[in-house]
Amino acid sequence: MAQKPSIPKGTRDFSPAEVTKRNYIFGKIQEQFKKFGFQPIETPSFENSDTLMGKYGEEGDRLIFKILNSGDFLRKADANAYEEKDSLKITSSISEKALRYDLTVPFARYVVQHQNEIEFPFKRYQIQPVWRADRPQKGRFREFYQCDADVVGSDSLWQEVEFIQLYDAVFTALNLKGVSIKINNRKILSGFAEVIGEQDKLIDFTVALDKLDKIGEEGVKKEMLEKGISEAAIAKIQPIFSLKGNFAEKVENLKGILENSETGRKGIEELEFVQNAIAEMPLQTSALDLDVTLARGLNYYTGAIFEVSAPEEVKLGSIGGGGRYDDLTGIFGLKNISGVGISFGLDRIFLVLEELNLFPPTVTESTKVLFINFGDKEALYALKAVQKLRRNNITAELYPESSKMKKQMNHANKREIPFVVLAGDEEMEQQRFTLKNMKSGEQFSVTPDELLTRLN
Amino acid sequence: MAQKPSIPKGTRDFSPAEVTKRNYIFGKIQEQFKKFGFQPIETPSFENSDTLMGKYGEEGDRLIFKILNSGDFLRKADANAYEEKDSLKITSSISEKALRYDLTVPFARYVVQHQNEIEFPFKRYQIQPVWRADRPQKGRFREFYQCDADVVGSDSLWQEVEFIQLYDAVFTALNLKGVSIKINNRKILSGFAEVIGEQDKLIDFTVALDKLDKIGEEGVKKEMLEKGISEAAIAKIQPIFSLKGNFAEKVENLKGILENSETGRKGIEELEFVQNAIAEMPLQTSALDLDVTLARGLNYYTGAIFEVSAPEEVKLGSIGGGGRYDDLTGIFGLKNISGVGISFGLDRIFLVLEELNLFPPTVTESTKVLFINFGDKEALYALKAVQKLRRNNITAELYPESSKMKKQMNHANKREIPFVVLAGDEEMEQQRFTLKNMKSGEQFSVTPDELLTRLN
Repeated sequence: MAQKPSIPKGTRDFSPAEVTKRNYIFGKIQEQFKKFGFQPIETPSFENSDTLMGKYGEEGDRLIFKILNSGDFLRKADANAYEEKDSLKITSSISEKALRYDLTVPFARYVVQHQNEIEFPFKRYQIQPVWRADRPQKGRFREFYQCDADVVGSDSLWQEVEFIQLYDAVFTALNLKGVSIKINNRKILSGFAEVIGEQDKLIDFTVALDKLDKIGEEGVKKEMLEKGISEAAIAKIQPIFSLKGNFAEKVENLKGILENSETGRKGIEELEFVQNAIAEMPLQTSALDLDVTLARGLNYYTGAIFEVSAPEEVKLGSIGGGGRYDDLTGIFGLKNISGVGISFGLDRIFLVLEELNLFPPTVTESTKVLFINFGDKEALYALKAVQKLRRNNITAELYPESSKMKKQMNHANKREIPFVVLAGDEEMEQQRFTLKNMKSGEQFSVTPDELLTRLN
Repeated sequence: MAQKPSIPKGTRDFSPAEVTKRNYIFGKIQEQFKKFGFQPIETPSFENSDTLMGKYGEEGDRLIFKILNSGDFLRKADANAYEEKDSLKITSSISEKALRYDLTVPFARYVVQHQNEIEFPFKRYQIQPVWRADRPQKGRFREFYQCDADVVGSDSLWQEVEFIQLYDAVFTALNLKGVSIKINNRKILSGFAEVIGEQDKLIDFTVALDKLDKIGEEGVKKEMLEKGISEAAIAKIQPIFSLKGNFAEKVENLKGILENSETGRKGIEELEFVQNAIAEMPLQTSALDLDVTLARGLNYYTGAIFEVSAPEEVKLGSIGGGGRYDDLTGIFGLKNISGVGISFGLDRIFLVLEELNLFPPTVTESTKVLFINFGDKEALYALKAVQKLRRNNITAELYPESSKMKKQMNHANKREIPFVVLAGDEEMEQQRFTLKNMKSGEQFSVTPDELLTRLN
């Protein structure tokens, strides 16, 4: 019986044009990853549940897609949970595997599992899909790709410098100018909490501060008050709301604000190291900026925090982010491995390039020439030429059936194939082809060699 | 608490060398797919369960990985099944989505769902992973890639010809010589069943015949007898066990065997068409052979059936297969769309190339030069050169920390990086670099331009 076909909400089919454009972005990112010395790894789509569960907080656990055990899975179901019909409690007894939620935890698992084969510092990149049972909405999907590059096994700040250069190299390669690479440092945020005497409210403080863009200064202060941060403390931190000027000027101001915090001063030192290096090796098309409100996944990050914004005119927000984490592999038993990494937001970058019309027209070009099929004898003559063209790197096709000429020409038009070849009795006799330019309508009688030259 | 990390059985982590080699194969296949005019699509990793269930037989249904519904899934569980603790019966009420089992059914779903956007005949390729809850064993995985190319919307035999050329083009590009492309036709098999008067036992007959390679002539006959095919019928079909000679000679023999079957004669005609075309356009490195025992997924196929074997010396069996199917999209309500397609077995091809040592050594080359880090001042000098090299397409790295020289040189050795650059006070003063060839041990003092030239 016929079913009306559809796909699960939050997932997507990608058409040829979409796949080709996405691959163009992947290709540019991958090319730079490689040039910077990153090596690819791939991990399985699903992991043992205990590898993933508990790593992303309670909300994260809920958003992880669980895979039902095979066979008679109810036989091993937790008896109490079954009795109580408790979905949450029964899950671990009927599902042992789960789809990966990000690439970071599987990477940490990979590093620990393969630590004896890995030569540290290990620079790896990984471009694979991840799955989240999020409520689907515009621009938020249940299956999407992540493109990550990380270095583990060294705490050198040169890596922060290189990641900024890497971002710049990728966006330059994509011809996307005006990208803003914002940097902050967890130690700056810790310093703020320290100087206002609210170390124990660091998370609440930074979560509120991170919203400055969205809810404004008053909104941030209101949220801080609600979280129990005193008015006096907020007054002390007032200067950070009005940090102005370029990177160096902001840093000078920070030095005043954080002069009594050792951690804060260390943060400033790290920021200055990175800024000085970039000043010595100017970026090509992106700009580096200091944004002390940037917090992102603070629980993770221990040093630098990155966020990359699309050019302002497109209003698409973050197209990448990352930072330094000092103990990611600790959850799997390998301590004291510092890491730093960045990721690229493929879907957002796609929208930005689309909006700014930055996909080169050649990206979606496919077949260059279609040979019209006039019957078996002519088709054989044509296919021999098609074969020769392909072996010379030209994408060529023979229309598979000897349909009406008009239908075949329409096919070429609809697929935007720029050239058509017609070869009937006359052409075959003369060992020639009639080449038609579909745009101009011009026709030429050509020899096999000329055909190759004209299409090359 | 530390967990001992592992991955689910039947899945794999891929190291940088493995990913790179796999990508080499994907790249060669993709290049030829494109050259032949195939366009890429991608479908979601999971489909609605009713898209997949019932399409692969009972065994297939069991092997499909089901995804547990999110939230309080037990609330909607089928009450009777819950009462009876019936795992099989409860599944559809607690799982609405499933991981794709192959690329063919999702492709059929795609074609039907997007029929109004598609210009037929539609040549698509798709390279994505699939998942099967098979018992893991040597060479059989629960997650693996399929690489498929199909044409839908035309029943022209020129497509069979082109798929043979496509196989030949890919294996030639991989430098894998001696591949055997075996062809059969469902109509030949139907013809056999017809001439022996056992049409209703066609499946049993062909399933047995397909095992000739493995169990030999006596084994096949024994199985046929067991399935209720009469001795007289088997005697009639005796000549097919001793078909000898080249393609044309086998066809001549078949003409005798099948002279009384119209379907069989049609099958011969189709085989001859393909064989004649290939004779006119000889294959580069593969050989086309007729194998009348070939059945593969007979339920599917209605015309040509392909199977590709690795060169005999590697004994790895099938590295690809395919065939024509006349009503794949019918299950989703779109009738009378003929299709034909082939697929490449990535994992097997990988093993074949590995065994025959056919991966070019350049495939796994990554970083070309490592700059030794002697401290921040020197590192900045080095990183400026690194940046210049990268912008000239040379993969270069700076060791991130100013560790002991020996440790850094060891790192270069372990990663098989062929060149190292040393630049300390003296080099910086002279605006030069010391370039060391790690294989020969030779060292050269070079200018920045010479550095570029030597590494290019």
